[in-house]
Amino acid sequence: MDSRNGSEVESFFESAPSLKNANIVSQKLKEFIDRNSRSSESGGPIRVVCVTSGGTTVPLEQRCVRYIDNFASGYRGAASTEYFVKAGYAVIFLHRLGSCQPYCKYLLEESFLDLFELAEEDKIEVCQSHGAEVKKAIREYHAAVDEGQLFRLPFTTIFEYLQLLKLVATSMSPLGSCGMFYLAAAVSDFYVPWQSMAEHKIQSASGPLDIRLTQTPKMLSVLRKDWAPFAFCISFKLETDPDILLQKANAAMNKYHMHIVVANLLATYKQEVIVVTKEGKASIRKHGEHDDVEEQLVNLLVEKHSEYLEKPETS
Amino acid sequence: MDSRNGSEVESFFESAPSLKNANIVSQKLKEFIDRNSRSSESGGPIRVVCVTSGGTTVPLEQRCVRYIDNFASGYRGAASTEYFVKAGYAVIFLHRLGSCQPYCKYLLEESFLDLFELAEEDKIEVCQSHGAEVKKAIREYHAAVDEGQLFRLPFTTIFEYLQLLKLVATSMSPLGSCGMFYLAAAVSDFYVPWQSMAEHKIQSASGPLDIRLTQTPKMLSVLRKDWAPFAFCISFKLETDPDILLQKANAAMNKYHMHIVVANLLATYKQEVIVVTKEGKASIRKHGEHDDVEEQLVNLLVEKHSEYLEKPETS
Repeated sequence: MDSRNGSEVESFFESAPSLKNANIVSQKLKEFIDRNSRSSESGGPIRVVCVTSGGTTVPLEQRCVRYIDNFASGYRGAASTEYFVKAGYAVIFLHRLGSCQPYCKYLLEESFLDLFELAEEDKIEVCQSHGAEVKKAIREYHAAVDEGQLFRLPFTTIFEYLQLLKLVATSMSPLGSCGMFYLAAAVSDFYVPWQSMAEHKIQSASGPLDIRLTQTPKMLSVLRKDWAPFAFCISFKLETDPDILLQKANAAMNKYHMHIVVANLLATYKQEVIVVTKEGKASIRKHGEHDDVEEQLVNLLVEKHSEYLEKPETS
Repeated sequence: MDSRNGSEVESFFESAPSLKNANIVSQKLKEFIDRNSRSSESGGPIRVVCVTSGGTTVPLEQRCVRYIDNFASGYRGAASTEYFVKAGYAVIFLHRLGSCQPYCKYLLEESFLDLFELAEEDKIEVCQSHGAEVKKAIREYHAAVDEGQLFRLPFTTIFEYLQLLKLVATSMSPLGSCGMFYLAAAVSDFYVPWQSMAEHKIQSASGPLDIRLTQTPKMLSVLRKDWAPFAFCISFKLETDPDILLQKANAAMNKYHMHIVVANLLATYKQEVIVVTKEGKASIRKHGEHDDVEEQLVNLLVEKHSEYLEKPETS
């Protein structure tokens, strides 16, 4: 991290509107991490992963009517959360409010009311076509919550996201190399600093509208260096141009000292990802219609995390 | 409508990426309107309302990763749709994909899975605390769909929204003054014309990013003048500054020849709206916690529509 980025990071946090309920969130996070640490005494080392998911918004006005957003349904983060839970991880699911949720990924996008009918005596029944899926989802969701393996933390703006990420990371820091970051959220590269933002809705008078956006400081460097220096870190690189994808993924790995960068193209991100490490790259492809890349991806990452736990000095 | 706006409208539609499935949507719309027109023979004139809801996105790249969005949960449009159905209207619900849906407004935002449990023998049960609400929602939703009173049409971008609005309006035109437009969607005042848009994801090289947005042509004028000249038209005006709200609402009414403009402030839009007509203004306030402004608002508009049907020459 160069010193210019350092001062930009400082100024970002100083000028950001303060997080609501920061103390309560911090306390709950601590309890979640402590509880899961305690339960590990029976077996191997406890592992906690922070999965970030969905896009951040960049408000264009302080009393926000308009904002810039990033394309991200949150499917990848939601699906991956399920597989991390299955692999025994405790998951902090730091997600965009309203984005795709774990155990809901098979459900219809438009209206969950289509899944249900009222039968005789006012009993609710699931439509036959989706019965098995919905029941499985309800069962697995409640199991994850009851076991205390799932902590959901929503954000909307880039200001909320980065403050929450810092809070989660510093809370996870005591876990050392047992902590993992799976940074699948689509974080805006640009933002409008709070103090230079219009207070009221920008008026559509005559003529075009010019907007100047500032580069978002590179927080991945700070996460690795200061917030949780021993955690196992995976970031994502999404591009639309295949010619620059791997080069950008490699650059991100070296610049931010990520252990792994998962590279994907907008056009094929549901079918294929490329897992880039210092040692090389591996492609993961979806096999069939009912399969998804996330299951294979998470299994590979769990394996890599195990190797890292044996030799954390490679960080 | 001045001629400059006219040529801007033309150029907007010429350069917009074409609508997917336009023919199928057009056919289904026609069937929905025809079916509802036929069923009116037993009673008074059939009324059809197009409720627009949620915000439009403005893509910043052709292979879209980033976009500008408007704050709008879609609550108002979804709730109003329920009250229009209750009042006997057939509703074309033109809504942002993923925004609030009719009959879902009381449900938790985060995860509908929290509402359900698996009881013995794999039966699905609704949690006691929400049982009555969820059953009512499922019952009313299926009744509206079974009666053929609800037609849902999703959009995401401003290109999709305006092309669909044109399609709906011209399809509803034969209904004359029995048609109503309840334009609650938050439509972007600015956009990036398709042909001047970057093809690939904008790279975050060094330095700030400058974006130039063009004013969106004023489609309300065209809707009133050309697409559905006899329909009863209600538009919405949202501002953050109370000092300019009524002046902007009046200006919109005169400029676009709306029959009614509903004015609201971002800070209080759930508690109060002001219904502005040529004759004056009326304020509608939420009474209690379980009440909403939409019920009173829709009832008032249905009344105004009845008056208009008796004297459509006031258009």
